[in-house]
Amino acid sequence: MLPRFALAALLLLAVCTLHAKPRAREFGVPFDGTPGPHNAITDVAGIEVGHVTLISGNGKLEVGRGPVRTGATAILPRGQDINAAPVFAGTFSLNGNGEMTGTAWIEESGFLEGPILLTNTHSVGVVRDAVIAWKTKKLGAALPNIFWSLPVVAETWDGWLNDINGFHVKPEHVFTALESARGGAVPEGGVGGGTGMISYEFKGGIGTASRRLPVDLGGYTLGVLVQANHGVRNQLTIAGVPVGREIGGGRRRFAGADPHNLAGLSVGDTGSILIIVATDAPLLPHQLKRLARRASLGLARTGAVSGNGSGDLFLAFSTANASGAARENSPGEGVQEFRASTFQALTNEGMSPLFESTVEAVEEAIVNALIAGEAMTGRDDHAVEALPSARVQEILKKFNRLTPSAATPKQN
Amino acid sequence: MLPRFALAALLLLAVCTLHAKPRAREFGVPFDGTPGPHNAITDVAGIEVGHVTLISGNGKLEVGRGPVRTGATAILPRGQDINAAPVFAGTFSLNGNGEMTGTAWIEESGFLEGPILLTNTHSVGVVRDAVIAWKTKKLGAALPNIFWSLPVVAETWDGWLNDINGFHVKPEHVFTALESARGGAVPEGGVGGGTGMISYEFKGGIGTASRRLPVDLGGYTLGVLVQANHGVRNQLTIAGVPVGREIGGGRRRFAGADPHNLAGLSVGDTGSILIIVATDAPLLPHQLKRLARRASLGLARTGAVSGNGSGDLFLAFSTANASGAARENSPGEGVQEFRASTFQALTNEGMSPLFESTVEAVEEAIVNALIAGEAMTGRDDHAVEALPSARVQEILKKFNRLTPSAATPKQN
Amino acid sequence: MLPRFALAALLLLAVCTLHAKPRAREFGVPFDGTPGPHNAITDVAGIEVGHVTLISGNGKLEVGRGPVRTGATAILPRGQDINAAPVFAGTFSLNGNGEMTGTAWIEESGFLEGPILLTNTHSVGVVRDAVIAWKTKKLGAALPNIFWSLPVVAETWDGWLNDINGFHVKPEHVFTALESARGGAVPEGGVGGGTGMISYEFKGGIGTASRRLPVDLGGYTLGVLVQANHGVRNQLTIAGVPVGREIGGGRRRFAGADPHNLAGLSVGDTGSILIIVATDAPLLPHQLKRLARRASLGLARTGAVSGNGSGDLFLAFSTANASGAARENSPGEGVQEFRASTFQALTNEGMSPLFESTVEAVEEAIVNALIAGEAMTGRDDHAVEALPSARVQEILKKFNRLTPSAATPKQN
Amino acid sequence: MLPRFALAALLLLAVCTLHAKPRAREFGVPFDGTPGPHNAITDVAGIEVGHVTLISGNGKLEVGRGPVRTGATAILPRGQDINAAPVFAGTFSLNGNGEMTGTAWIEESGFLEGPILLTNTHSVGVVRDAVIAWKTKKLGAALPNIFWSLPVVAETWDGWLNDINGFHVKPEHVFTALESARGGAVPEGGVGGGTGMISYEFKGGIGTASRRLPVDLGGYTLGVLVQANHGVRNQLTIAGVPVGREIGGGRRRFAGADPHNLAGLSVGDTGSILIIVATDAPLLPHQLKRLARRASLGLARTGAVSGNGSGDLFLAFSTANASGAARENSPGEGVQEFRASTFQALTNEGMSPLFESTVEAVEEAIVNALIAGEAMTGRDDHAVEALPSARVQEILKKFNRLTPSAATPKQN
Repeated sequence: MLPRFALAALLLLAVCTLHAKPRAREFGVPFDGTPGPHNAITDVAGIEVGHVTLISGNGKLEVGRGPVRTGATAILPRGQDINAAPVFAGTFSLNGNGEMTGTAWIEESGFLEGPILLTNTHSVGVVRDAVIAWKTKKLGAALPNIFWSLPVVAETWDGWLNDINGFHVKPEHVFTALESARGGAVPEGGVGGGTGMISYEFKGGIGTASRRLPVDLGGYTLGVLVQANHGVRNQLTIAGVPVGREIGGGRRRFAGADPHNLAGLSVGDTGSILIIVATDAPLLPHQLKRLARRASLGLARTGAVSGNGSGDLFLAFSTANASGAARENSPGEGVQEFRASTFQALTNEGMSPLFESTVEAVEEAIVNALIAGEAMTGRDDHAVEALPSARVQEILKKFNRLTPSAATPKQN
Repeated sequence: MLPRFALAALLLLAVCTLHAKPRAREFGVPFDGTPGPHNAITDVAGIEVGHVTLISGNGKLEVGRGPVRTGATAILPRGQDINAAPVFAGTFSLNGNGEMTGTAWIEESGFLEGPILLTNTHSVGVVRDAVIAWKTKKLGAALPNIFWSLPVVAETWDGWLNDINGFHVKPEHVFTALESARGGAVPEGGVGGGTGMISYEFKGGIGTASRRLPVDLGGYTLGVLVQANHGVRNQLTIAGVPVGREIGGGRRRFAGADPHNLAGLSVGDTGSILIIVATDAPLLPHQLKRLARRASLGLARTGAVSGNGSGDLFLAFSTANASGAARENSPGEGVQEFRASTFQALTNEGMSPLFESTVEAVEEAIVNALIAGEAMTGRDDHAVEALPSARVQEILKKFNRLTPSAATPKQN
Repeated sequence: MLPRFALAALLLLAVCTLHAKPRAREFGVPFDGTPGPHNAITDVAGIEVGHVTLISGNGKLEVGRGPVRTGATAILPRGQDINAAPVFAGTFSLNGNGEMTGTAWIEESGFLEGPILLTNTHSVGVVRDAVIAWKTKKLGAALPNIFWSLPVVAETWDGWLNDINGFHVKPEHVFTALESARGGAVPEGGVGGGTGMISYEFKGGIGTASRRLPVDLGGYTLGVLVQANHGVRNQLTIAGVPVGREIGGGRRRFAGADPHNLAGLSVGDTGSILIIVATDAPLLPHQLKRLARRASLGLARTGAVSGNGSGDLFLAFSTANASGAARENSPGEGVQEFRASTFQALTNEGMSPLFESTVEAVEEAIVNALIAGEAMTGRDDHAVEALPSARVQEILKKFNRLTPSAATPKQN
Repeated sequence: MLPRFALAALLLLAVCTLHAKPRAREFGVPFDGTPGPHNAITDVAGIEVGHVTLISGNGKLEVGRGPVRTGATAILPRGQDINAAPVFAGTFSLNGNGEMTGTAWIEESGFLEGPILLTNTHSVGVVRDAVIAWKTKKLGAALPNIFWSLPVVAETWDGWLNDINGFHVKPEHVFTALESARGGAVPEGGVGGGTGMISYEFKGGIGTASRRLPVDLGGYTLGVLVQANHGVRNQLTIAGVPVGREIGGGRRRFAGADPHNLAGLSVGDTGSILIIVATDAPLLPHQLKRLARRASLGLARTGAVSGNGSGDLFLAFSTANASGAARENSPGEGVQEFRASTFQALTNEGMSPLFESTVEAVEEAIVNALIAGEAMTGRDDHAVEALPSARVQEILKKFNRLTPSAATPKQN
């Protein structure tokens, strides 16, 4: 058996391998707070993330044929165990030009009962039904006589790069995302549901980050995963620095915006961002709604104003209270219990540090998505450039905000 | 020591003394479910109710002089103990033409921290600040250096009978309501906040009822208190029977309604109803919002459609989880705790019987308010008649709905 | 060309043919208010309804093979015109154990932009994506370069009769429901999305009704369509009469409920009801939320308490403001307009009669669904009986509530 | 008659007189967007603001005697005309540890019907009832027979400096604030409701700012007024620069926070901020809720995370649609109208520039409140320092963010 430090070294190696280029904080963006070991949503114990990435074809759009630049990302709050207890959850819609299925039951019951899937706008349906099929498959003979499921599937729009009306996500892709889900480092950028996404007119997609609280504030871990497809270039702010304006340029996806392409105006801000917040702090459903609302503040730090066309839907859940107690609350089985269960819940006062962690981790996850993004050409040769990280370093330096220990990023 | 049945007999005597006339179920209205010993919100252990009733003057309105037909009702979830833990709570607005202060913090924190006060529309302010004054007085030397309070005060409009713009409720009246609060039987009809209220064009006001669940469904108690000031006569339905139409007549309070006084139309339904639901079942804040929403269904059984002018605001709370644990969550003291507490919570499936109890108890509490109401003349000689209970018996009989064991009601 | 009266006569004949048996009011249930010509949601001009009904197989459940007892119902607010303006809309969740996609955008924008589809719980996804496919097909060459859609699809659970995990609804079925949508009389009972639905332990499904206001109250039409799959027998109340208890018997779908099958308790009330309210009254989005909330009160009149397992999701929309003005607000096209449009809106005071109409029409639509329901045997030979309408007449008579002019219903 | 430029010069003079020291943008804080002439909420035509400031006593707290450091601020959407039409409005609670009365009716009706008052936490009641008294006084003989009012009053907590449990705000003070309300420049800092407020551990209080959109984006004006009493020093961010950390020091109001006074942690963030957003853009109630929600993003730019103890309540209203049409929707008069009115409403797409303006103006209004704040000593010699504006200039310069044309601020 390997000694502990060797394992840690191997882990670090694996992370570095996975993340081909340094992440935002590694090359000098000054973020507040202390991240967990992977600086990822998976730092919250038990959470697994899986991606399926679909890239094929080039050139002119032929609906149903491609080009394909899409995928799906699965977040499993308690991993692969189909019999695990549901998790308490809460949601918030900052701007509802988007879809997140399953929220009526989260609001009603306080429970999220299964995985969260992120995909493109026009594949929400197939992904939703596929989650049900996956559940029935996993349950097999244990499938209750009375069974229903209300899966949580959310989306952003990748139709600038992807043949979105071709419906290229199939049930088997969803199964792949679910079954390949793992703990540990999370691939970022143009992968999974984030494959064809664009943020601040740079390549966006999946980003993640985490925070760990000091022991005297509870010692909890909080992780965030975003699917970033929002913002116009002029808005992009990193660590308070107007990076987007300094870089300039960019190309609006939305034709109608062109005549009004005025500096700083949110006109044309028609993208969207999904934000998932997870924690092992024991929070009740109404407390998780509070956490979800804070995602707005982290998003604001990157310059977004959440324009009319934005589907900015957030969900927060807690992996605490995993004991069988919560199980009884699960619907879909016809079991009816009339007794009380015991739950742990953090004091409301104890939530403030988690609010701060949420704001910080959302900010960092978004920047991570941008840093991880690589240039992509898709449908009709629409091209999206990557955020040039060396240029970002220069700009941070100009505004006296570059972390001294910054690594030299590879050139995009 | 007296034998148990003797105590029960004494109790019954006390109740009968308090309630000068039989209550709705005693004279034959068929209600579902099993009430607690007082068929009142106070059947939920620890809850205390106090009224202050202000009646003076007659004849023509002179603003500031009267006539006065108003008051306040205090509901203390954990009685007089100022140091008692807050209770979990949730609210619902069926139609928000009304005021209930303090709801932003209930929604945010899940906690109700202090009494609930019911009064008239234009005295909400004075009652609110008086609750703070009462708290500081009770705390005395124990008043924390950092202290704030966001009292819950709700209202309906008694200006048809009362000099509402004369602001006759004073802080000392509020103290009286709070300090006289008791468990046991609750005076109903034209008392406390209900003094000048009118319902279905009959004298309305305070009504209460309770339900006790069978042991195999949890054995919980649920109580309801209403301040009924809503509805037009044509709508009044008791036990499914169109009692209002059978009686006919009535006088709309709202002049604009007269030209359209068509049978069955809700035009002119400009009153309001406040409904407070309490239970000892251990429910979390999001579960209490569910309970509060069910009050709508009990209200509907009495014929209401919740017209545009109605302030139909509902609040549900649970007296469970009374241990010190919840104390830490209380604001206003500058104490900050970053640890988890333990709570009990009923399974969601276990809530259905409580939903049913809520619907039943709300229905009965409203009818109790009407039955308890006595004819009143107020401002400008405006007169409101009482619901004629003998007539109600006849009508129930006509529709084959009179309980066989019905007592003969005194004539109103 | 036929004279007008002849057309009317033919229409009447068609309606009578469509409705093989009399509807609730025809055989003597006393409802309040005045319905439109078809007593259906289609009385609101421009609304079209289409059903696809899937019935095949018998006997033991083989997942993927059947038996099949399901379908889909499409409601088109402005008929088949794909370029029609969106309609203002608002939603309400009385109990969110269900799914209605597309609500985040309705809440945000106030607009419903396309059809509403009702189906079974596990087919929401396929139906949702099929609506997008249908839109792209209809738009054809006019499909904008930038296009997205967030369809509204809702569900109730038909797994007691139907092989719900077999996913039998296919995109082409959705197209059929959409393309066959028509104005005029609406088939009720076990058709479309209602095919396998059960209500109050009788055969349920689709029901509809309408109200027309007197001219001096605005002369507006309001229509309701329900997909009724809720309630336990003991609760069923028709015109205030405890019809369910009088009939007795019944069979709970949910095994867990059996031990607690106590009279009147909502235990086991695990079904759901979808309620769509439509009107030609010019209402703004926040006013339509008010209307949607009133559906609860109509539901309550039939005895429901909206148990934990119920997905009671309501949507209200207004067909007014159909001019091009509203068109500018539609998303999904990248068109950005920065100008004001003109809208009509009813005064808030003017809404009370619409509230009353909603309550009345919801009550009648539910009873219509029950009356239209016919006995069905499905999966694993699960059998559901129809509400025996002759027996209902007897019971109404016993409670002195039968309309004198009642027709003799055919025996179920 | 004076020529126009002379009037403008006089106006400028008046503004400079009113604002004893330069405002934030004048001494070099780089804000985005173009403000209106007063850079104040009063740039929205018709809006009037009045303050009453109560300062008396020094030294040790004697409840009821002082020291007094409090007041009230009145915002009149349509000025002094008591018969003016109500304005459409919408609210948002980012963190509900606070009170804003009257919101149930805003949510229900979409209307704000009268002034908005801002005061301290324990004076909400007296201010609320005083607004009713003021209305009845103003209406005089025109007071309708049937009249009720549900005033909007909000608060933050000034108990660190003020004898808040002494209830020093009296009805006559409220009348003064209302009657002294004027258009034009708005006094900022420790005035009116902001008198005893503290923000980011500096003197806070009232701040205001405005934005004017280019004509091709509608040419609308949007104004913001805040009562800032929130944040801990480490969080304070101005124009993206970590000003609070650079300055350091500070004193937490809340004792419990001390042991955890860790850099950057939101522990102890127990203040609150009220944000009022006004515009002349024609927006419907659901659109104004969207605007109110954006205030969160402007707040986030100043570093806040909205801690558990924060009462962060926002309200947005539109002065458009002032014609008599809206009048009919007003409650409290018993008038019932069943007809439609005509309203203007901006397209949803057209809102994005207003979202951006809201974010910008909220950010600037908060910084304005801090810049205007002057050192204050209150109860028990609690002392609060002013934000040192010269130091802020240095810091902005250090981070290359000082506007070149910055004026030299007076030293605090």
